[in-house]
Amino acid sequence: MIIVMSPKATQQNLEDVIKKVESNGLKVNLSKGEERTIVGVIGDKKKIANLEMIMMDGVEKTVRITEKYKLVSREFHPADSIIDVDGVPVGGKQLAIMAGPCSVESMEQLRESARAVKEAGAQFLRGGAFKPRTSPYDFQGLAEEGLKMLRKAADEFGLKVITEIVDKDDIDLIGEYTDVYQVGARNMQNFQLLKALGKAKKPVMLKRGLAATINEWLNAAEYIASGGNMNIIFCERGIRTYETFTRNTLDLSAVAAIKELSHLPIIVDPSHGTGRRELVEPMSRAAVAAGCDGLIIEVHPHPEVALSDGKQSLRPNDFRHLMGEVGKVAAVMGREL
Amino acid sequence: MIIVMSPKATQQNLEDVIKKVESNGLKVNLSKGEERTIVGVIGDKKKIANLEMIMMDGVEKTVRITEKYKLVSREFHPADSIIDVDGVPVGGKQLAIMAGPCSVESMEQLRESARAVKEAGAQFLRGGAFKPRTSPYDFQGLAEEGLKMLRKAADEFGLKVITEIVDKDDIDLIGEYTDVYQVGARNMQNFQLLKALGKAKKPVMLKRGLAATINEWLNAAEYIASGGNMNIIFCERGIRTYETFTRNTLDLSAVAAIKELSHLPIIVDPSHGTGRRELVEPMSRAAVAAGCDGLIIEVHPHPEVALSDGKQSLRPNDFRHLMGEVGKVAAVMGREL
Amino acid sequence: MIIVMSPKATQQNLEDVIKKVESNGLKVNLSKGEERTIVGVIGDKKKIANLEMIMMDGVEKTVRITEKYKLVSREFHPADSIIDVDGVPVGGKQLAIMAGPCSVESMEQLRESARAVKEAGAQFLRGGAFKPRTSPYDFQGLAEEGLKMLRKAADEFGLKVITEIVDKDDIDLIGEYTDVYQVGARNMQNFQLLKALGKAKKPVMLKRGLAATINEWLNAAEYIASGGNMNIIFCERGIRTYETFTRNTLDLSAVAAIKELSHLPIIVDPSHGTGRRELVEPMSRAAVAAGCDGLIIEVHPHPEVALSDGKQSLRPNDFRHLMGEVGKVAAVMGREL
Amino acid sequence: MIIVMSPKATQQNLEDVIKKVESNGLKVNLSKGEERTIVGVIGDKKKIANLEMIMMDGVEKTVRITEKYKLVSREFHPADSIIDVDGVPVGGKQLAIMAGPCSVESMEQLRESARAVKEAGAQFLRGGAFKPRTSPYDFQGLAEEGLKMLRKAADEFGLKVITEIVDKDDIDLIGEYTDVYQVGARNMQNFQLLKALGKAKKPVMLKRGLAATINEWLNAAEYIASGGNMNIIFCERGIRTYETFTRNTLDLSAVAAIKELSHLPIIVDPSHGTGRRELVEPMSRAAVAAGCDGLIIEVHPHPEVALSDGKQSLRPNDFRHLMGEVGKVAAVMGREL
Repeated sequence: MIIVMSPKATQQNLEDVIKKVESNGLKVNLSKGEERTIVGVIGDKKKIANLEMIMMDGVEKTVRITEKYKLVSREFHPADSIIDVDGVPVGGKQLAIMAGPCSVESMEQLRESARAVKEAGAQFLRGGAFKPRTSPYDFQGLAEEGLKMLRKAADEFGLKVITEIVDKDDIDLIGEYTDVYQVGARNMQNFQLLKALGKAKKPVMLKRGLAATINEWLNAAEYIASGGNMNIIFCERGIRTYETFTRNTLDLSAVAAIKELSHLPIIVDPSHGTGRRELVEPMSRAAVAAGCDGLIIEVHPHPEVALSDGKQSLRPNDFRHLMGEVGKVAAVMGREL
Repeated sequence: MIIVMSPKATQQNLEDVIKKVESNGLKVNLSKGEERTIVGVIGDKKKIANLEMIMMDGVEKTVRITEKYKLVSREFHPADSIIDVDGVPVGGKQLAIMAGPCSVESMEQLRESARAVKEAGAQFLRGGAFKPRTSPYDFQGLAEEGLKMLRKAADEFGLKVITEIVDKDDIDLIGEYTDVYQVGARNMQNFQLLKALGKAKKPVMLKRGLAATINEWLNAAEYIASGGNMNIIFCERGIRTYETFTRNTLDLSAVAAIKELSHLPIIVDPSHGTGRRELVEPMSRAAVAAGCDGLIIEVHPHPEVALSDGKQSLRPNDFRHLMGEVGKVAAVMGREL
Repeated sequence: MIIVMSPKATQQNLEDVIKKVESNGLKVNLSKGEERTIVGVIGDKKKIANLEMIMMDGVEKTVRITEKYKLVSREFHPADSIIDVDGVPVGGKQLAIMAGPCSVESMEQLRESARAVKEAGAQFLRGGAFKPRTSPYDFQGLAEEGLKMLRKAADEFGLKVITEIVDKDDIDLIGEYTDVYQVGARNMQNFQLLKALGKAKKPVMLKRGLAATINEWLNAAEYIASGGNMNIIFCERGIRTYETFTRNTLDLSAVAAIKELSHLPIIVDPSHGTGRRELVEPMSRAAVAAGCDGLIIEVHPHPEVALSDGKQSLRPNDFRHLMGEVGKVAAVMGREL
Repeated sequence: MIIVMSPKATQQNLEDVIKKVESNGLKVNLSKGEERTIVGVIGDKKKIANLEMIMMDGVEKTVRITEKYKLVSREFHPADSIIDVDGVPVGGKQLAIMAGPCSVESMEQLRESARAVKEAGAQFLRGGAFKPRTSPYDFQGLAEEGLKMLRKAADEFGLKVITEIVDKDDIDLIGEYTDVYQVGARNMQNFQLLKALGKAKKPVMLKRGLAATINEWLNAAEYIASGGNMNIIFCERGIRTYETFTRNTLDLSAVAAIKELSHLPIIVDPSHGTGRRELVEPMSRAAVAAGCDGLIIEVHPHPEVALSDGKQSLRPNDFRHLMGEVGKVAAVMGREL
């Protein structure tokens, strides 16, 4: 940590600052400039992390040099981590493709979806049985009934299941049916849920919050990791900006940023990230070219009757086309579908 | 709902749209322009709310006319609601002032805080016993031990208690000690928590999410209200923008907006809203002048040793000064402290 | 400036950094921590301002300690500056009230507006003769004909004139008619215009850009000041955020921030800042309570026929009411209308 | 246009609205719902564009159906336009690659840059002779001297020139040396400059404003087009968001959006878009995969001594590597380098 003293700081202010730092078992290094004195704090990282200096008289600002997350950082684990989802790897040479409807609506819908996404090359069936909706009067999902359908449809076609969890009480229930827990954007900083998932046995896909910085996202993952569950997959799904043409602004720089800062895999959700069907394919290609480890895409056999998010769902035909296009980009990236 | 047909829509597309609307028990009104046909949908609001048309072939866009929230709306209840917090009103002539430390740290700290805020005229003692922190390695609060101290300090000085809840499992536990449940910004769309609080007996203060629209905020309150708990207090605490000088951008327009759209009271948090001690007083005055029903302010007897958010905490002296200034503005607004 | 070396930096990297700093006539102070070495740069501010270190091998990041703006800073001129607009002060005890239509449309409209705003207590007539409009097909203003009307109406009622300049070629032309040049949000970083206004003889009101930080705004003002024109008035007019209920998000914290960082006066535009007529009065009260030096408000005798921005224009009656309300808040702030 | 009447609107309000619409030579279509009446406005697009109804009593809101830009729209010109830059096409099968230093600093620097970018396959040399800088004390560019160097270096290596214009007075001067005028983000809504460029003979590259919507960007282009110059190239360079890890948030969805809404080509600037050297290559690949028509990239022979933006400049070696990678993605997109 660096402590920048105000030009108006007195000698006494400076001495008090030094005293406080030293009383925490840390050392200081002074740098006296023309106008300001800079105090460098040296010593144990954890002690520094807990040091609060900004309120001391004469302190103008403090600058943190070291990030707080550790287990999820690239420094901690320089090689790429590959998450094993019951035999299907996420993070290696092969791209992980997750596809299916936004909400689970019926066995028929799921079976059609599962067939279509399997045929096109996906390894995961996605679908929400517990839906976090803006209004309490919107469709909230089929709950356990939906989970059963999801598992059944996935098993019929040899797919893995990923589904959203919105309540820590549901960890066991959902764990019976799913292969990956999905934490949605609204829950990225639901720390109780993250802590509980840190104790869970199955992998967790952590979506980026609507207005979360990359730093906050990494710290949210650290909540899961510090509980003991290192099987974490990041998912970029767009951030909230002033632009209204798209539902969110898909931040593909975050793919390269996460790859630099963390060893964990990252996949991209171009469906929620754009909210517009016609943008899903170009942004899928772009995501793979940016270096992501997979995609999660809304596919609905009949989007015109979907109970949620029909506007951004692809029809099976569109998805097949997308997979063909993505496959070409994957190939030049040295990846496989 | 208004359905705008694309200039390229065929007659068949239009007929399909009409058929779908009518099959939902609704009627249409056609408006044929030079380039586009507009389909007005007429009928029962709930049926319209569930209608998804955007995926139909030939549909360019749809425009919703009616909001989904109802119980919290001004239309539903034209007069201002006053929330009764165990005898202390929030929302009437008297401004509700909530003050105290960010985190509960010790009995000594709380007693000093309670004395100071009571003397300055506050009616509520605030303080966090369960803290949602960005990093798992930051101080997470004293839990029940903290709640006990909070209650004890408040009772000694005749104050009400407000404290944050981050887990629905804690409703009963916290309910034993607090007078108002606070839902923090990160949990504004933690719908499980909101639903559970809809069944609780005590008032809920709902902070605005970091990147929540006013519409989403009203819908979040509707989750609580639709569960049966109408004792809701809104709290504007700043939104996330690109500006870095302040921690958040305090959106005082939201005060006037909520007053227009809802019958429920709204208070303002200038401490989190600005993140800078020197801005708390001017923004408190401004909040009252904008028409808010109260303030929640961080006061710490010794902010330089605070375990969290010391940078934005006022010292007791500063708070007394603030109360004097706010009192003058309140008076010309026809409000009392 | 502080240079943070990467944990991977070699001794050679460090020596190269030191060499570059020293070759610029500056000195270094080394602070060796457990993982990283921090290099403090000491010496002449201007030399430091021009130092670019971030590309050197082994450098992780650099932190600037000193801002680049100078003439407009509070450090440079600790006392509040009062701008003299042909005998009317902006920045002192008396609030400066600027009011009138968005666009100049006719002599009749201006005369009605001028009468109304004068009677209500305004000292300035505002109105646009050159309008920067999003679409080339929107009404672009009456140009010199509009300026003449504006001057004539203002003179008839003893008002000063403020009007927007969008082209540096118009400085002399507009200068013949106006008392204050207004630089709109879109032109806040039109540096050619700012430089030209630095040579002008009349005061300049500089609106904050749609997405400008406070720091960029101060630097934009420095362009004018460094040209020789210190008669600058800041104007907060709302920033662009994701919120759609309001046209912009009025950032009243910026008022207190500018007061802290600069000696120059700041006024607030609640009309553009909210874009909604019903929010103008509460936000005007709030702005004054936050400590601003004046207001600029759209008033139109018949907003229902306005050629631009009718939605946010007040009718004369509304404006009179607003002035009464603002007057009460001003009084407790020790200000006068 | 659709006019939504308030539930409280009277019959008289409705009749007044109808009267106003009809007095503008337009027709209405009424749609009476349970709570609200909707008035559809039918007739000539230009007449509708100028209709302002929002201030009429009883009007709740108005919804525009048709965008105001026309010449730049895909509807107006369904086929892709290819811009001919003195023999080099922008917008066709071949990707346009523009590269070079942020600022022109010396003949030596330019010659090295030009050699490097030419060898790697670029067709354009970029470099700023007139620099819009946040602070007036930052390096402002070499002006005409810089233009001469730029032209000379480009000619030596058979490259086209693109350089920024910040002042309409410089159109002729810059036109003598450049092949494409670049309008920077800060000037995207400098309408005087856009109008002047509408009369210019050479192509214009229009960067997206820091906080510009796609709609505003298209309208800004319409200013140029409506002046007679249809040779416009869009350039996405990142938008301003709350994220601080990257300098801006590169919005690649805008590439697909512009392709859908306009016939004009769009290129991407990953250097300013990310502000971090290590992100330039992945985002270049992603941009091409998203369907852009070219890239503009900062390349500096010695970025560690660059006078501006060194942090995001590639070294010649990095750029060669990037071109190899981009070439592979281009190939599968059916494009050529």
